[in-house]
Amino acid sequence: RLRYILNEDDDMPTPTLFTEMDTLQREGDELEWKESARWVKFEEKVEEGGERWSKPHVSTLSLHSLFELRTCLQTGTVLLDLDGYSLPQIVGEMFRQIEEGMISPDLREKISFVLLRKHRHQTKKPIHRSLADIGKSSSASECLCYLSDSVTTRSMNDIADSPSTDQLKNKFMKKIPRDAEASNVLIGEVDFLNKPFVAFVRLAQATTLGGLTEVPVPTRFLFVLLGPQGKAKSYNEIGRAIATLMVDDLFSDVAYKARDREDLIAGIDEFLDEVIVLPPGEWDPKIRIEPPKKVTSADKRKSVFSLNELGQMNGTAGGGGGLAEDEEMPVQHELGEELAFTGRFCGGLYRDIKRKLPWLPSDFYEGFHIQTISAVLFIYLGCITNAITFGGLLGDATDNYQGVMESFLGTALAGSVFCLFGGQPLIILSSTGPILIFEKLLFDFSKNNNIDYMELRLWIGIHSCLQCFILVATDASYIIKYMTRFTEEGFSSLISFIFISDAIKKMVGSFKYYPINTDFKPDYVTAYKCECLANQSEVLESSTLQSSFLNVTALDWSQLSKKECLKYGGSLVGRSCKYVPDLALMSFILFFGTYSMTITLKKFKFSRYFPTKVRKKLISDFSIFMSIMTFVGLDMLIGLKTPKLIVPTEFKPTRPDRGWIVMPFGKNPWWVYLASFVPALLVTILIFMDQQISAVIVNRKENKLKKGCGYHLDLFWVGILMAACSFMGLPWYVAATVISIAHIDSLKMESESSAPGEQPQFLGVREQRLTGILVFVLTGVSIFLAPILKFIPMPVLYGVFLYMGVASLSGIQFWDRIKLYMMPSKHQPDFSYLRHVPLRRVHLFTFIQILCLTVLWILKSTFLAIIFPVMILGLMVVRKMLDMVFSQHDLAWLDDLLPEKEKKKKEDDKKKGKDKDKDKKKSKGDDSEEEVGSFIEALLPPAGLVLYSMHLYLPVGPLSDECRVCVFAFRRSITLTPTTRQVQSPTWTAGTVSSNCTSPTKTWSTPVW
Amino acid sequence: RLRYILNEDDDMPTPTLFTEMDTLQREGDELEWKESARWVKFEEKVEEGGERWSKPHVSTLSLHSLFELRTCLQTGTVLLDLDGYSLPQIVGEMFRQIEEGMISPDLREKISFVLLRKHRHQTKKPIHRSLADIGKSSSASECLCYLSDSVTTRSMNDIADSPSTDQLKNKFMKKIPRDAEASNVLIGEVDFLNKPFVAFVRLAQATTLGGLTEVPVPTRFLFVLLGPQGKAKSYNEIGRAIATLMVDDLFSDVAYKARDREDLIAGIDEFLDEVIVLPPGEWDPKIRIEPPKKVTSADKRKSVFSLNELGQMNGTAGGGGGLAEDEEMPVQHELGEELAFTGRFCGGLYRDIKRKLPWLPSDFYEGFHIQTISAVLFIYLGCITNAITFGGLLGDATDNYQGVMESFLGTALAGSVFCLFGGQPLIILSSTGPILIFEKLLFDFSKNNNIDYMELRLWIGIHSCLQCFILVATDASYIIKYMTRFTEEGFSSLISFIFISDAIKKMVGSFKYYPINTDFKPDYVTAYKCECLANQSEVLESSTLQSSFLNVTALDWSQLSKKECLKYGGSLVGRSCKYVPDLALMSFILFFGTYSMTITLKKFKFSRYFPTKVRKKLISDFSIFMSIMTFVGLDMLIGLKTPKLIVPTEFKPTRPDRGWIVMPFGKNPWWVYLASFVPALLVTILIFMDQQISAVIVNRKENKLKKGCGYHLDLFWVGILMAACSFMGLPWYVAATVISIAHIDSLKMESESSAPGEQPQFLGVREQRLTGILVFVLTGVSIFLAPILKFIPMPVLYGVFLYMGVASLSGIQFWDRIKLYMMPSKHQPDFSYLRHVPLRRVHLFTFIQILCLTVLWILKSTFLAIIFPVMILGLMVVRKMLDMVFSQHDLAWLDDLLPEKEKKKKEDDKKKGKDKDKDKKKSKGDDSEEEVGSFIEALLPPAGLVLYSMHLYLPVGPLSDECRVCVFAFRRSITLTPTTRQVQSPTWTAGTVSSNCTSPTKTWSTPVW
Repeated sequence: RLRYILNEDDDMPTPTLFTEMDTLQREGDELEWKESARWVKFEEKVEEGGERWSKPHVSTLSLHSLFELRTCLQTGTVLLDLDGYSLPQIVGEMFRQIEEGMISPDLREKISFVLLRKHRHQTKKPIHRSLADIGKSSSASECLCYLSDSVTTRSMNDIADSPSTDQLKNKFMKKIPRDAEASNVLIGEVDFLNKPFVAFVRLAQATTLGGLTEVPVPTRFLFVLLGPQGKAKSYNEIGRAIATLMVDDLFSDVAYKARDREDLIAGIDEFLDEVIVLPPGEWDPKIRIEPPKKVTSADKRKSVFSLNELGQMNGTAGGGGGLAEDEEMPVQHELGEELAFTGRFCGGLYRDIKRKLPWLPSDFYEGFHIQTISAVLFIYLGCITNAITFGGLLGDATDNYQGVMESFLGTALAGSVFCLFGGQPLIILSSTGPILIFEKLLFDFSKNNNIDYMELRLWIGIHSCLQCFILVATDASYIIKYMTRFTEEGFSSLISFIFISDAIKKMVGSFKYYPINTDFKPDYVTAYKCECLANQSEVLESSTLQSSFLNVTALDWSQLSKKECLKYGGSLVGRSCKYVPDLALMSFILFFGTYSMTITLKKFKFSRYFPTKVRKKLISDFSIFMSIMTFVGLDMLIGLKTPKLIVPTEFKPTRPDRGWIVMPFGKNPWWVYLASFVPALLVTILIFMDQQISAVIVNRKENKLKKGCGYHLDLFWVGILMAACSFMGLPWYVAATVISIAHIDSLKMESESSAPGEQPQFLGVREQRLTGILVFVLTGVSIFLAPILKFIPMPVLYGVFLYMGVASLSGIQFWDRIKLYMMPSKHQPDFSYLRHVPLRRVHLFTFIQILCLTVLWILKSTFLAIIFPVMILGLMVVRKMLDMVFSQHDLAWLDDLLPEKEKKKKEDDKKKGKDKDKDKKKSKGDDSEEEVGSFIEALLPPAGLVLYSMHLYLPVGPLSDECRVCVFAFRRSITLTPTTRQVQSPTWTAGTVSSNCTSPTKTWSTPVW
Repeated sequence: RLRYILNEDDDMPTPTLFTEMDTLQREGDELEWKESARWVKFEEKVEEGGERWSKPHVSTLSLHSLFELRTCLQTGTVLLDLDGYSLPQIVGEMFRQIEEGMISPDLREKISFVLLRKHRHQTKKPIHRSLADIGKSSSASECLCYLSDSVTTRSMNDIADSPSTDQLKNKFMKKIPRDAEASNVLIGEVDFLNKPFVAFVRLAQATTLGGLTEVPVPTRFLFVLLGPQGKAKSYNEIGRAIATLMVDDLFSDVAYKARDREDLIAGIDEFLDEVIVLPPGEWDPKIRIEPPKKVTSADKRKSVFSLNELGQMNGTAGGGGGLAEDEEMPVQHELGEELAFTGRFCGGLYRDIKRKLPWLPSDFYEGFHIQTISAVLFIYLGCITNAITFGGLLGDATDNYQGVMESFLGTALAGSVFCLFGGQPLIILSSTGPILIFEKLLFDFSKNNNIDYMELRLWIGIHSCLQCFILVATDASYIIKYMTRFTEEGFSSLISFIFISDAIKKMVGSFKYYPINTDFKPDYVTAYKCECLANQSEVLESSTLQSSFLNVTALDWSQLSKKECLKYGGSLVGRSCKYVPDLALMSFILFFGTYSMTITLKKFKFSRYFPTKVRKKLISDFSIFMSIMTFVGLDMLIGLKTPKLIVPTEFKPTRPDRGWIVMPFGKNPWWVYLASFVPALLVTILIFMDQQISAVIVNRKENKLKKGCGYHLDLFWVGILMAACSFMGLPWYVAATVISIAHIDSLKMESESSAPGEQPQFLGVREQRLTGILVFVLTGVSIFLAPILKFIPMPVLYGVFLYMGVASLSGIQFWDRIKLYMMPSKHQPDFSYLRHVPLRRVHLFTFIQILCLTVLWILKSTFLAIIFPVMILGLMVVRKMLDMVFSQHDLAWLDDLLPEKEKKKKEDDKKKGKDKDKDKKKSKGDDSEEEVGSFIEALLPPAGLVLYSMHLYLPVGPLSDECRVCVFAFRRSITLTPTTRQVQSPTWTAGTVSSNCTSPTKTWSTPVW
């Protein structure tokens, strides 16, 4: 029956209903309707005593009241599609349609009178009343004389024809959707009835009925329940029941489309069947249940309409076993067409441009928002700190060929160009560790071999740029679809750890730089001094003619500063020479203060203080800025000479003997130009991996980006910038993971919650190019901002660094899983993967990740750091091998499936159809050979430029029942023909064979794939 | 019907039921019962994938399944009081009782076979399996061949006769009450049935049925549902429904006492009627609802048995208005017989001793608990810090007549005596501010007037002691029943603020004590030194014979320390003389670090990490100790000369010219012995108020103290200690609010949660005398602990002080209400008073409290601090006046009612009976006269020792309708006849009359009371 009504004209959506429940009250000797609760989606109750609205909560009903309501609708008056334009007319019409003889004319008049009493709505009382109320409170409601026959002597109609100004300017209006209609529930006890009078009215046209509703929303439904005295509570519950039904998506549909009483009853029955029941002994009905984060949408509820298949309850003991879980499998890692291999020359690049171009205008106008300012300030400070840090380090590494000045200029140039034209303008370019190490090695090499560094570097840049173009042209970026959560998380947490450790190292460094004199005894202050003396021999010499010499020369020396003294060959003598007071501790206070204040302010978003706007938009978004300002202020207040941010103030290369343009020819022999192809290759891999993995992290599905990504376009511009920077002798730039994540975080949008009680939803990121461009333009003009920037102490910026590192760790599933180690299982949060994967498997997975990270960290700390991005390939190989350790089911929950697996899985599922046989795991073993092969192929550069010699130690998975856990090692060389991309002569040599295996079958000697 | 069964033999309580639900599964080609959920009170589900128990949650059922269950019980087999000793026998018996012809013998055999399959319980897998599982996981459950006719070929009985060791050593057992019985729910799909087979069995005697139940608990109920295939989910829901019913307090009663099927059906109907319903559109059934903090007890549910009066739902729009709220009025401030005025000599003291004596043994043996250690350490550190602080201050104030040594000795003596014999051993005695100020004034007075300070002090002590005895003998402590939450909160938050401000002042002081050289330039370290020079004149003199003089004398001077230099009249010259590096900042780090680490560790209790025991017992309870240790360690590591805790090491008076006993006669003229009566009076009031208000705070109802209090006994011992300390020349001691609260907090007990999911309840405080005694004994022997204590830096202890102050603020309703100012009303927490009192009234109440505190704070900062405790009387007067500003209803929620009011209210309520007229507020106005009168009387010392001249500015409440808010001021002198305790000649003079009042009636000129 219901299916029929609801499907009748499903194209016309029904308006949202706002429900107001008014109860009949006596105020003095007047009867009036007083608003007692309202529903947009959740219930808000008027708290009599508190004279306020309660918090929105889930309406908990009693089953009893629902059944009573059902009886009411069965026996009461139901009028559908009544014509009406005002309340008196509607009431009149109502009685006309009720059969004669049902209600006596006398009662009719009395009921009409009651129904037309004026309505008092719960609006916020003005503040100035509160003082006047002081005296009143004790004498309020003194006269409660009952009147029962004075009824007819009063005016019949108390209700205003048009909404009052109070109603019109009610701010609550903005919480109600624009197309909403009202349903009014009127509940009252009267003394002239001896059985309840019930009417359910649907108007043919929604009409604004004057002062009936709190807000000027046209009324569509009226539910009236008047009954004899003494059962107020019961009537109230019935009123709440119908009100809750009216705001139920499905029932309101039914109410709009019902043809008769029976349809409504069916609607209630349907509602009852879907209802969730809490046992009285396990739940205190007085608890107001907060609205849930998410509720099942009405559409979904409609789709499970058959009564037998009642929506799965939370507690269903997983009777059927596998099936129920398979249904709940997490949504798969979806890779859009961005990473499809086009097979055409520059196909990916073309698609990227085609995809991004239409968004270009919106990339600018969407940037005009207050949030932009905080994001720009935050990222700007991160960027210049980074620029100064790396600039300083690069200057040390390259003998100032590239210094802080070049770092600023390069950051500004590369960043703004990339944000203007790049595929993913949310990515922030920056110098990164591997590049720094490469430059250092390169500079040492050229110095030792008398090769001109700048020219060599230029050629490497040019080669690398060309190689990037080749990668772009061949759509090589498609390889990153093999990056699953495992790889991403490994990479990004490693980078975060590096940020954190760098920040802490810098901090610890300041304790070395400003050593504390821990032996200082305040009383013996007289014993501490530091004098500059001419060097020892002079002193000895002069000892004979002490008096005259000391008088003349000593004065001279004592005026010198520490640096000058050392410069002129003097020596510092005294117990305070090597100590610097206060600065180290002050730096620590600034560092830790900035960090913890930022963390605290960020958390402030979840506190209850201040209106939401202030909390979220101001305090939370500007938390970093506010912390920086606070601690800059503190630093200025105390006035200690803490190390400050010093930016170059003059626009000239750090090293005077170099210009702004590097000439490509002339200084090095010709073969160097060609040979630089080889180091360029390393740089290319480095850049490719660093750039693309950051892009993958930025483009994560969780970030809900809408404008698509542009891996090929990104790489294209990074290549161009490589060349450009090389020509200008500036550092090379590549996507910086942590700052990019910070950028995205600072641009996150949340929906303004609509219905009271509904949780704001994360809508996505403010995708635009403006913030990035502004950040880098600001970086460029920082040279002129030096007078302002010089007040910022470096420890404050290290604090910001620490925050960035820690913030980018949170929200990573890996991190959550690490925390699980420390929690007893009964306290663990209800992560969905914990419901589906045994804890020990989760721990094993986490442990493998930790192991990988430790290895990477150790490698990172050696000179191998230069091949750091290549190691990410290693992570991908490890991930591949995990396929053999973990079941696909477990991996689907903990990680994502690799593309082939996923495809296969889907096919399997199809094949399986309805027979529910769990044979997929069996078939997996057989297929693994070709899978691994195609995976290795996928890892290779598309046009096969390199000869790889790989050592793969693969735990080769389930091959036979007898020998399941054997771990084998294989070694092989893959020789590639550059043109065909075919793996030639796959000769594998079995390495060690685990002794567990009793019968190595033939499979072992022949190549596995 | 139900009422009849339940009341039948209500004296025998039914055992708690543990319910286990097992579902039929195929494992390989075996059928077996697998545990899928269990209930002690809340549901725990087996998570198939996760191979673990879910968190306990409220069982959300579908209405459908409840109705299906009802049908099942109507149509299925119900066997009550079956005799059985083993499962096979029970199954056999079951079939014998089922009528012939209902089930064919063939089916009977098959069902028996199925019912006797073995049960697999969800027990935690041993850890060593996890590695072996690695390979297995991918090949698990490969063979799922269906068997259907192999049934009869197997052994009929798979089930063990006795519980297995797994069952016996199941740790879950301890979560189940000892007297519990089990109910087993068996749910399964089988292919040989075409209609469901349902059986509900109650055994005559609970019997352990071998491997049936997870834990070796005897089974009382069996519910079997076997049905045709395809409806597993539906069966499951029915199983969950009966399981939930079985653990419901009321239904389990019904199940135990049911005489037939109809009783069970009635039980379900009753359950259905009480059920709480969540609308499907507002709640996602997948959310697992966490168990609530409190659920309605079964008894309460029984009492509201009539169907019309369904328990009030959370959302009931307060239709009836006043009535509903009156019912919910908060439980009144209950004053036990402790404060009753006995009217007999020493009646109160006698009762106190009678009350406390029986607890004496338990006061000691209950102290043996691990928590004691942390409490002792915490309070000990608080006490010695306090002793040192006050000792130092007292030493300054009294020219070392009472110094740190006396402070230690006095604290140890007074504290241990009080804890041993006092009425409330949880109170910690300490020096307090007012006493300090009194001593200072007294010392100055005696010095200026050539009176011997120690002797005068002794006499004051003796007088004061006697006065205390009088107060004890006359039961004067009963006055404190006029102290409501308003007064308590005012006092305790003021003391907390003083603690906080003192801690911060100390900290700021260290910046003054160790000034930082903010102009220090690291490079110009050579310019900073501090030389000790002979004073200027000498230098000038010596300028002529510089060379020789400098060589000889300067060397001498330069070896001197700062103090020595100044001592010998030298002057310090140099830019570093007045600065002390690092110490101030280090102190700050230690101070703030200790404070924030303590706060963080305290909060750690609520985190998810580590097992509950570790978290609560170790980390949270020992948080202060751990923080202190950490920062002591840090301080030692860095090795700076931060100010350390120095306790006296030798047992001798601080001032060498005094001994340990003060002689009462000889040094002052005789009249001083008598005149000291007057200052003693002040001291008595001071001590009385300070002591008793702290006692009230400690004895608060929220602390759930069980051993009663002893106000009179407390005062008695304080009096004795006054005299004793005076004789020994030690400081005077009185209860210290903040440390006492800290003492109580550190001894709080929580119930070990019994049923999984049940919240641990606050049980009360570990009331004993041991901690107090240990603290003070330790304080006494601190003299010998000096070598250890000297490692503790003072800033760390100030951090502990700050923590104490802040911690004692939290949990005060006043503080919560202050926070409300900063919250927009929709974010405010759901405090019960906010539901019943308008926000602006709440704010007004808070504002008055803030105002009072401000006034007190200001007074406190002047010399008036000496009458500080008397001001508490002022607070009580203000509270009395609030009766005229706020309605009794509001005050009942925000504060407590004053004793008379309360009595009257109760009488009113009785008088009112059922007519529900709100006349009580009217009557209140008339009664207020006598009330105020009796209140004033109550404020006076019982035997009328003083002449008061009071200025009362009372807003005299509702007197007539025309003039409600008029504020009048009255001034009068009360002259008391010492014997009769009658207020003589109550002549009141009207002061200002507010101009609002139009017609001051006759009432004004005549005295109001």
